[in-house]
Amino acid sequence: MEQQKLIPASNVTAETIAAAAKKYPTPFYLYDESLIRDRCKELRDMPNAFGLKVRYGMKANSSKALLKIIANEGLGIDAASLNEAKRAMMAGFGAEEILLTTQEVPIGEDRRDLEDMMRGGLNYNVCSLRQLELVADFAGKNKIPLSMRVHPGVGSGASSTRNTGDKYSCFGVHLSVVKEAMDMAKEKGLVLKRVHVHIGSGGDPKVWKDNIDRELSYLEQYFPGAETINFGGGFKERRMPEEERADIKALGQYAKERIEGFFKRTGRKLFMEIEPGTFVVAMAGFLVTRVLDKKNTGSDGFQFLVVDGGMETNTRPLLYGSRHPMFVVSTEGTLLSGEYGDGPAKKPFVVVGRCCESGDALTLDDEGKIVERNMAEPQFDDYLVLGGCGAYCSSMTPFNYNSHTQIPEVLQRANGDLVLIRKAQSLAQVTQNELSI
Amino acid sequence: MEQQKLIPASNVTAETIAAAAKKYPTPFYLYDESLIRDRCKELRDMPNAFGLKVRYGMKANSSKALLKIIANEGLGIDAASLNEAKRAMMAGFGAEEILLTTQEVPIGEDRRDLEDMMRGGLNYNVCSLRQLELVADFAGKNKIPLSMRVHPGVGSGASSTRNTGDKYSCFGVHLSVVKEAMDMAKEKGLVLKRVHVHIGSGGDPKVWKDNIDRELSYLEQYFPGAETINFGGGFKERRMPEEERADIKALGQYAKERIEGFFKRTGRKLFMEIEPGTFVVAMAGFLVTRVLDKKNTGSDGFQFLVVDGGMETNTRPLLYGSRHPMFVVSTEGTLLSGEYGDGPAKKPFVVVGRCCESGDALTLDDEGKIVERNMAEPQFDDYLVLGGCGAYCSSMTPFNYNSHTQIPEVLQRANGDLVLIRKAQSLAQVTQNELSI
Repeated sequence: MEQQKLIPASNVTAETIAAAAKKYPTPFYLYDESLIRDRCKELRDMPNAFGLKVRYGMKANSSKALLKIIANEGLGIDAASLNEAKRAMMAGFGAEEILLTTQEVPIGEDRRDLEDMMRGGLNYNVCSLRQLELVADFAGKNKIPLSMRVHPGVGSGASSTRNTGDKYSCFGVHLSVVKEAMDMAKEKGLVLKRVHVHIGSGGDPKVWKDNIDRELSYLEQYFPGAETINFGGGFKERRMPEEERADIKALGQYAKERIEGFFKRTGRKLFMEIEPGTFVVAMAGFLVTRVLDKKNTGSDGFQFLVVDGGMETNTRPLLYGSRHPMFVVSTEGTLLSGEYGDGPAKKPFVVVGRCCESGDALTLDDEGKIVERNMAEPQFDDYLVLGGCGAYCSSMTPFNYNSHTQIPEVLQRANGDLVLIRKAQSLAQVTQNELSI
Repeated sequence: MEQQKLIPASNVTAETIAAAAKKYPTPFYLYDESLIRDRCKELRDMPNAFGLKVRYGMKANSSKALLKIIANEGLGIDAASLNEAKRAMMAGFGAEEILLTTQEVPIGEDRRDLEDMMRGGLNYNVCSLRQLELVADFAGKNKIPLSMRVHPGVGSGASSTRNTGDKYSCFGVHLSVVKEAMDMAKEKGLVLKRVHVHIGSGGDPKVWKDNIDRELSYLEQYFPGAETINFGGGFKERRMPEEERADIKALGQYAKERIEGFFKRTGRKLFMEIEPGTFVVAMAGFLVTRVLDKKNTGSDGFQFLVVDGGMETNTRPLLYGSRHPMFVVSTEGTLLSGEYGDGPAKKPFVVVGRCCESGDALTLDDEGKIVERNMAEPQFDDYLVLGGCGAYCSSMTPFNYNSHTQIPEVLQRANGDLVLIRKAQSLAQVTQNELSI
C-alpha cells in the first residue's frame, strides 16, 4: 500500500511499524536495508575522473549489521577511533578498507594495536605533528605509506561554533605547519600517499567547490607523492520535507572536472575519496516509540505527549535543535498522520520523553526552546515514530541516563523480513562492571 | 600537603591524582568518599520542624558504591525510573526508602514490577492522571498510600526552556486537574500521604520561599490526608570558585518556620523531605584525563589541548555550557595550576576531547562557543583534571560515541585508599548484544 509509506524513499510502512512493535518491545530503532543499499549505490555512482572510493563515516552508526550491508555494497570505512576500526574489522571489513582519522594518539596499548592494523593494511591519516612523530619510525621502517589530514584554517560557513575547518576546531595538521610536517616526513623517508581535508560542507556547492580547489592547491604545493585526494563528508540529507539533500551528481561533476583539469596541467591522475556518514544511513533509520501519557499545562500551556523514547534514544534535538519528521501510527498499523503527506485534522503537540530532565523533548528549536508540532492525536499505546534516525541517534545518545537500558535495533531486510540485529540491553548489563565496596 | 588539595573541601590532592593514574588507565572518574559524607551530614542537619528525610536524587550518579555510602549516611532515594529504584535496591536500599517519581507509566512488565515494589514499601509519586488511574485499583485494594507530584504551573526563574515547574514542562499533575485527581482518589478510597513539588530553585531563597508557601497552600486546599511535604531538590553547588552554593541552613530555617506556622494554624504536623542530587555528589567527583596532543590553529587561532576524555565522559559543557574547574597535574603529582588557588604563569588554552565532533570541547560558553581557559601549560601525558564531575557526568554522557568505552570509576575511601568501583567497559561489552545477519 503505497500511501502508507512513511517517507517516499523508504519501504518502511505503517504496517511495518505495527508488525515490528508487536514482535519487539518499544522503544526500538528500525532500519531499512533497501534504503541503505540505494544510498550506497547513489554514492558509488558519483561522477569522478580516475576512480572513486566511498568511505562510510561509521561514527554515524556503527551497528554490525549495517556495517555488513555497507561492506557488501563495496564501500570502505572512515573510522574516527581505533575502536571504530576494530568494530569495522569485526563486521568484515579488511584493514586495507579502513582509513583511520582520529584525535587519539598512538601511545601504550593503542600503539601496538595501531601498528598491528597498519601492518595489515590499515590506512593511517596523520592529524597532528605528534601523531606523525609517533608513527614515523614504524612507518618508515616498514615502508608503510601514510595519509595526512590538512586543517585548512577555513570553515564551511557563517557559524564558528560547529565547524571542522576553521580556527575553532583542531582537526588535522594545520596548514601553517604542513611544511614542517612534510620536512619531517622527508627526513624519515615517509611516503604521503593521500591528502584529506574535511570541512563539513553539507553539500553546499560553493563550499564544496572552494574546498576542492583549496585541497588541490595544497596537494600540488606540499604532497609530491600523493595519489589520492579525500574530500571528506558531511553531505546533507533531507530529514524534513522542506529540507534539501546534497546533489551528489552535481558535486561529483565538479570534482571530476577539477581533477581532470589537474591532470591536464600536472600529469598526475588523482584517485578520489569521499566520506559520507549521515547520507548513507540517516533516512534509513526510524525511532519507534509508544505514547505513554498525555498531559497539558493549563489554558495557556501546551498539550504534551509523553513517549517511551526521548533524549536517551535520540539526543539530537536537545544537543543541536535537530528536527525529525514525526509519524503517528495506530496499534493496528494505520498511518494517522505523517510529515511527508496529508493526514486527518492535526493538532499541535509537544513531544517529550520519559527522563526526569527538562530538556528531554523531541520538539525543540535550535535555542533549546519547546516548540509544537502538528499531528493527529494518538491514543495511549499508539506509536509515535521519528524518521531520519539512522545517523547519530543510536551512536551518540546517553542511553543509560535515568538508568534506562540501551534499546534494541531491528532491521527490515530487503525482502521485507524483520530481524533483530541488537538485543535490548539488560539492567544487569548496565551494572555488570560495578564492584562492591 | 594542604596546598596540593585541588579544591578546599576535598581530600583529593594532586598526589592522589598521580597515584590513581599510575594504578588505573586514564581517563577515569575519581570520587571522594569523605566529601560525599560531609555533604550528606550537612543536608541531614538542615533545620526542620517535625522531622526531615533527605532523598538523594540518584539520576545525578547511580554508581553502586556511591549509593552504598549514601545509604550508610541515612539518606533515602529519589528515583526517576523503575530501573533507578531497582538499582537503589541492588545497592542496599529498602524499598520503603525510595520515592519513585517518573514519567513512565506502569504498563506491561513495568506494572508487575512496580506493584511488587509497592507491596515491599516503595513510595509511588503519582505524576499524571493516567498514572493515578493505572495504580488506583491496586493501591486501593492493598491500602497502599500514595504520593502526588503537583505541577504548579510556575517555574523557577526567568528561563522558560530549562525548567520543571512552568508550562514548558509536564512533570506532575497539573494544578488545573489536581481537584479532578483528588476526586478520583476519593472515589477509589485512596490515601494521598505525601505532596511533592519540585521546580528546580537552585537554592535561590526567593524561589524557595515562594515554592514552600505555594506548596503549603496546595496541601491545605487539596490534600487533607497528607502528612509529608516534599520540596524537591535542585540545590546549587559551587563548582567554579566564583559561584555560590545554596545556603542549606537558611533554606531550612525558612521551611521550618513555615511548617511551624502551618501547624499553629491548622494543627497538622508536616514531615519534610528534600531531594538533592547535584549537591550530594557534584564536588566529590573528578574527571582525570591525560593530555594527548597540542595543536594550534594559526596566528589568529587558539592553542588546543587534546585530552583523552571529552564529551563522551562529560557532556555538560556541550549540552548546557557548564563550566568545570580545571587542574593541571604533572605525572609526578605536582599541581601545576588549579582554579581554586594561585599557580605559575598561566596561558590561555582550549581543551577538546578525542571525538571527531566539532562540539567535543570542555571549554565552551552557554552558546556552545569555544572559549579559552587559563592554565599552566602541561607536558604530553600530564593530567588535565576537571572538578565538579560527580553529578550528571558518568550518568548522562554518550559514553560509546565514536565507539569509546565507558570509563572506569575509582573511589578514594575516607582512609585514603584508592579502590576501583567500576571496571572499564570492554569493546566486547559494547558489542555484546549485536546479532549477526
